Amino acid sequence: MTEALQPAPTAAMLAIGDELLSGRTKDRNIAHLAGVLTLAGIDLKEVRIVADDERAIIEALNALRDRYDHVFTSGGIGPTHDDITAEAVAKAFALPLIQHPEAMDRLARHYAARELPFTEARMRMARTPEGASLIDNPVSVAPGFQIGNVFVMAGVPSIFVAMLDNVLPTLPGGPVMESASVACPFGEGDIGGPLSQIQKQHPAVAIGSYPRFDGQRYSTELVIRSRDAQALAGAREAVEAMVAEMAAKS
Amino acid sequence: MTEALQPAPTAAMLAIGDELLSGRTKDRNIAHLAGVLTLAGIDLKEVRIVADDERAIIEALNALRDRYDHVFTSGGIGPTHDDITAEAVAKAFALPLIQHPEAMDRLARHYAARELPFTEARMRMARTPEGASLIDNPVSVAPGFQIGNVFVMAGVPSIFVAMLDNVLPTLPGGPVMESASVACPFGEGDIGGPLSQIQKQHPAVAIGSYPRFDGQRYSTELVIRSRDAQALAGAREAVEAMVAEMAAKS
Repeated sequence: MTEALQPAPTAAMLAIGDELLSGRTKDRNIAHLAGVLTLAGIDLKEVRIVADDERAIIEALNALRDRYDHVFTSGGIGPTHDDITAEAVAKAFALPLIQHPEAMDRLARHYAARELPFTEARMRMARTPEGASLIDNPVSVAPGFQIGNVFVMAGVPSIFVAMLDNVLPTLPGGPVMESASVACPFGEGDIGGPLSQIQKQHPAVAIGSYPRFDGQRYSTELVIRSRDAQALAGAREAVEAMVAEMAAKS
Repeated sequence: MTEALQPAPTAAMLAIGDELLSGRTKDRNIAHLAGVLTLAGIDLKEVRIVADDERAIIEALNALRDRYDHVFTSGGIGPTHDDITAEAVAKAFALPLIQHPEAMDRLARHYAARELPFTEARMRMARTPEGASLIDNPVSVAPGFQIGNVFVMAGVPSIFVAMLDNVLPTLPGGPVMESASVACPFGEGDIGGPLSQIQKQHPAVAIGSYPRFDGQRYSTELVIRSRDAQALAGAREAVEAMVAEMAAKS
């Protein structure tokens, strides 16, 4: 239904980590990014989850950065051997992997202040492709980075959220998507026909239908989305009239 | 690290739905599938989330079914206009979309027994590519289907889980992956170096390191995975010795 909407910047997410694919960790960053981008007027079009596998990361990243305005990655930028995101991103861009001077400086000061050794492992967290700019990490210092249209961020949710807060104000957003929600006491099987008619008559909105099942019967939440407030109001009226008419008949 | 492991059947998931990308709905099926496949000895290698957009579904499905042994989809098989998964899957396989006779029969009986009209919208739920076999839906009758190596299932979590329970026993699993977990009171920056050495010395296991941050300091959970119980035990011993040695020094 996306073709019904006004154009807006597009985005994709690449979540990286064996633990997401083994079921050990439930991802919490995808839903957060989705909500935040919607509010910012940026269309999240695709998400991919891949393992800590260099070839898989490179291939997915190149597909996504080619296709969408912005790509956000999560995970794989810590200090251990399985943190290979920075290296994979550098290879995807065919750029040398360097120790970013400003990142080295921030980390060195951070560990010196805590009288902790600045180990080789910790220095891994300063690696970026040449030419990257840093994304601040107010939680635990080790920065993310931006290279081209790709924003490389941590997988730990509190840090992912903080980094995203730093990135979002720098992005041009489209007109913000507005939405209206209509509760419908009928199941999708009852409303599918008339709802489809309303969608056809209101091409500037996207109407989604989300079934709820309480173990006995279905009800539906009908969500109408548009970047055009007038079109939204018109479609909402039509949907509400449909629900009222069905309720009167039943 | 996957190259260190014994070969096992591979799988991908394709989660379909605008609501997952707008932040309106948090996906719950990916983590469930990941956990269940791991127990079954099947490697989940990649997940993609796409919108209710025919071209996006077709493209992702064809990429995934070509690359992995099994593909599991969720979402888009209900009765409303935005449920376009069956049609997109048929197009991806270049097969005609039919009303599956057995699915029509099950649905007709279901609605007749409840004195509900078998509407055109409801008949949409009987659509499959020609040659598909049905996946039972013990929750609400409307079936999923299998075509080739693709299993098309509902997005409603209770139904997804039930359909998956019906599918899994039909798949050949590989040797089951076993895992051991070692709690480590040190952050990744402290253990990165020695852990990397242990990983190199134990190529038949995959060692993952998962940081925890309590707002003040990091600790780590170290997870060792292998399909070879003896290799797992050896690596676990080495990791525990590393943690004990660091604790003695600190």
